Amino acid sequence: MESHYVLSLVFRQARRQDVPAIVAMLADDHLGAAREGDPNDERYLAAFDRIDANPHDELIVAERDGKVVGTMQLTYLAGLSRLGAERCQIEAVRVAASTRGQGLGREMITWAIDRARARGCAMVQLTSDKSRTGAHRFYDSLGFTASHEGYKLILG
Amino acid sequence: MESHYVLSLVFRQARRQDVPAIVAMLADDHLGAAREGDPNDERYLAAFDRIDANPHDELIVAERDGKVVGTMQLTYLAGLSRLGAERCQIEAVRVAASTRGQGLGREMITWAIDRARARGCAMVQLTSDKSRTGAHRFYDSLGFTASHEGYKLILG
Repeated sequence: MESHYVLSLVFRQARRQDVPAIVAMLADDHLGAAREGDPNDERYLAAFDRIDANPHDELIVAERDGKVVGTMQLTYLAGLSRLGAERCQIEAVRVAASTRGQGLGREMITWAIDRARARGCAMVQLTSDKSRTGAHRFYDSLGFTASHEGYKLILG
Repeated sequence: MESHYVLSLVFRQARRQDVPAIVAMLADDHLGAAREGDPNDERYLAAFDRIDANPHDELIVAERDGKVVGTMQLTYLAGLSRLGAERCQIEAVRVAASTRGQGLGREMITWAIDRARARGCAMVQLTSDKSRTGAHRFYDSLGFTASHEGYKLILG
């Protein structure tokens, strides 16, 4: 008799107690390491509460066998452009180091695209640091077009 | 005796009756012309109402001598990254054709940066179509860094 090891993968809204695990993923990255702090810093919880209270904002986690292994934030942006089309913006996509290379990122972004389409969004948009060349191939393969320059201005 | 022609320039929240003028500016553009419709289409008004009802979203117009001559949308994005920093995202920046080349765009973006700083935002971000090379020089000159690829996926 064969054994079947079926791993459960769930995408769900993040809860307050997920915040330290999410912050740890944000920090576990060549760009994130320099800019994140203590995962228990109360400023992270305050930001979580603001996202959680906003009906146009969703902080999502991927949970596998009870463990948070991925995260992304979806924001639904209203705008007049394109006949008042709503857009879904994806930010802060991370997969836990222990889980990379297993296709989880693809499942996450595909899930986000499906969710945006079901909601009636006309577009999904995101930006990716120019140093993340692996991520660029990944987004290209999912049908995204790198049609825009992404500008940032850090306020001192 | 000299005559002084002092033109009044005001930045303010857009009102519902500004929507046709804003849409006309969105459409008066080599990219916008193909994707906008009748400025009186009710879908534009529905999108305006959604922006207007969202405390994290501001549709701004520049008004000179009672005439709307510029527009931009500011969205204040919560996020866990960077110790829970808030970001200001600028979208849909347009200056009326009759007013281009007079520095209004610079006044608008400078005003947006000041507004984001006063609110405590850690970053201002925007994307600009890669074909808008003039806009890129403009954002570079304002201190923005084109550090990111801007990806879009149009949903069919």
